[in-house]
Amino acid sequence: MFEQLGLIGCGLMGGSFALALKRAGLVKRVVGYSKSPSTTERAYQMGVIDVEAPSALLAVSGADIVLIAVPVAASEATFKSIKHLVTPQMLIMDVGSTKRDVVDAGRRALREQIGSFVPAHPIAGKEVSGVEHADADLYSGRQVILTPIERTLTIQLQKAVDVWSALGCRVVQMSPESHDAAFAAVSHLPHLISFALMNAISGQPQGKDYLSLAGPGFRDFTRIAASDAKVWRDIMISNREELLAQTKIFQRNLQALELMISSGNGEALEGLIEQASLTRAHWRMAQQQK
Amino acid sequence: MFEQLGLIGCGLMGGSFALALKRAGLVKRVVGYSKSPSTTERAYQMGVIDVEAPSALLAVSGADIVLIAVPVAASEATFKSIKHLVTPQMLIMDVGSTKRDVVDAGRRALREQIGSFVPAHPIAGKEVSGVEHADADLYSGRQVILTPIERTLTIQLQKAVDVWSALGCRVVQMSPESHDAAFAAVSHLPHLISFALMNAISGQPQGKDYLSLAGPGFRDFTRIAASDAKVWRDIMISNREELLAQTKIFQRNLQALELMISSGNGEALEGLIEQASLTRAHWRMAQQQK
Repeated sequence: MFEQLGLIGCGLMGGSFALALKRAGLVKRVVGYSKSPSTTERAYQMGVIDVEAPSALLAVSGADIVLIAVPVAASEATFKSIKHLVTPQMLIMDVGSTKRDVVDAGRRALREQIGSFVPAHPIAGKEVSGVEHADADLYSGRQVILTPIERTLTIQLQKAVDVWSALGCRVVQMSPESHDAAFAAVSHLPHLISFALMNAISGQPQGKDYLSLAGPGFRDFTRIAASDAKVWRDIMISNREELLAQTKIFQRNLQALELMISSGNGEALEGLIEQASLTRAHWRMAQQQK
Repeated sequence: MFEQLGLIGCGLMGGSFALALKRAGLVKRVVGYSKSPSTTERAYQMGVIDVEAPSALLAVSGADIVLIAVPVAASEATFKSIKHLVTPQMLIMDVGSTKRDVVDAGRRALREQIGSFVPAHPIAGKEVSGVEHADADLYSGRQVILTPIERTLTIQLQKAVDVWSALGCRVVQMSPESHDAAFAAVSHLPHLISFALMNAISGQPQGKDYLSLAGPGFRDFTRIAASDAKVWRDIMISNREELLAQTKIFQRNLQALELMISSGNGEALEGLIEQASLTRAHWRMAQQQK
């Protein structure tokens, strides 16, 4: 399907995409570039990429598909560094967890070539980062959100739908704005909460003793707290308005529960817990039917 | 090791204990009672219990080991209903997630027989409840916290240590007060947060759409939100002081993160996320070495 993948950012997300594309026989050659030469080198040694490029621009040279898998704050600089080689025949995608800021960066940097860029957010991840954890199955069975704009070329959008579908993903399309509002609620806020919880416990004199007693519920609840700090710094600042709005709504709900606990209102408390429990159970059932 | 287990509350926790004890060959006969006759009936049909008792008192009659596996708020009524048959030769345990209130209920209801009661909290659970999910492996490899008091009989404490160890648990002893402070932080607060988050999202006009986009991070983070409403109502009200103190600390940490996001202070934000991420990674490594 593709001759050459230009991979910019050979970490967990980018490396897994390269491996998946290769395994599916969808690309002949992967040319990779990472900001850190040791990452590029490791990706080459692992067979994730076939050629090490010394710059982002050279990774794009000769590519018919490009994946930008860098922290979202690095998007604009990346677009700028490759813009001279972007053509309407090229499919360019990212994997960022925010979309409005990446689309804005693309408009500013790519200008008339913005049509080649199909903003993408695959809903997949691991609690570890780095190319050494790259996994050809990372995207399999996951949702991928595409957020095309009015200038996105239909042919590139169709290629993007096809390639993710071929990797076993369910492709969903929506506007960058709708994407960012939804993910502030179901992803960015949970991450923020998990960071706050870890810090709240570890900051206490007995925090270490408390942590030694934590069980499997805590393990699952805090899995996302192990996420990469730079990646999540960028996501949270990029999507700050939506995130802070969601944080406010969350705090109001938390305070409502606190009030019932402090006043000993068991009936009302049980009602709110029951509502949360049912919402979670319904969500899980819907997921399993997908 | 034991002749007869008197099981009061034949749900997930109680049923799993009965199955584990039977499989390990540690008990000859299980006599069970649940408040709901249909639960007792189902436990009998599933082979979790061998005899259905029509009351808690009759479940205790003839038992040399008794497990009380009821919502913590029902502890005192349960102790009262069985106290006439409690002897110093009998080991009585509970599985409650709070310990101070259960110990207080035991002192009030059992009086001079309190020595037979060894308060226990196995750190195990599932996102589903009910005897139909009972599992002989639920406790295997888990921690069990025992919180004896000065009047606890040494012989019964030793039996409690032996039986949980025989089921493959790591037994830890501490005071009821230390237990409740620790679990407010690493269990009760995460549950409260997960309930608040589910309600925060589902209460929004677009909540359903948002939820349909949620991925594996959200799945793990909200697993505990599916917990039983009555059980958690009781835990939160029982341990309200410690829980509300932890909630305050959490909110201060959340607000510190919010401030960095709203002011765009990426460096400070990255530092706090890094701290959370490292705490989680260290915790996970320590867990895996256990």
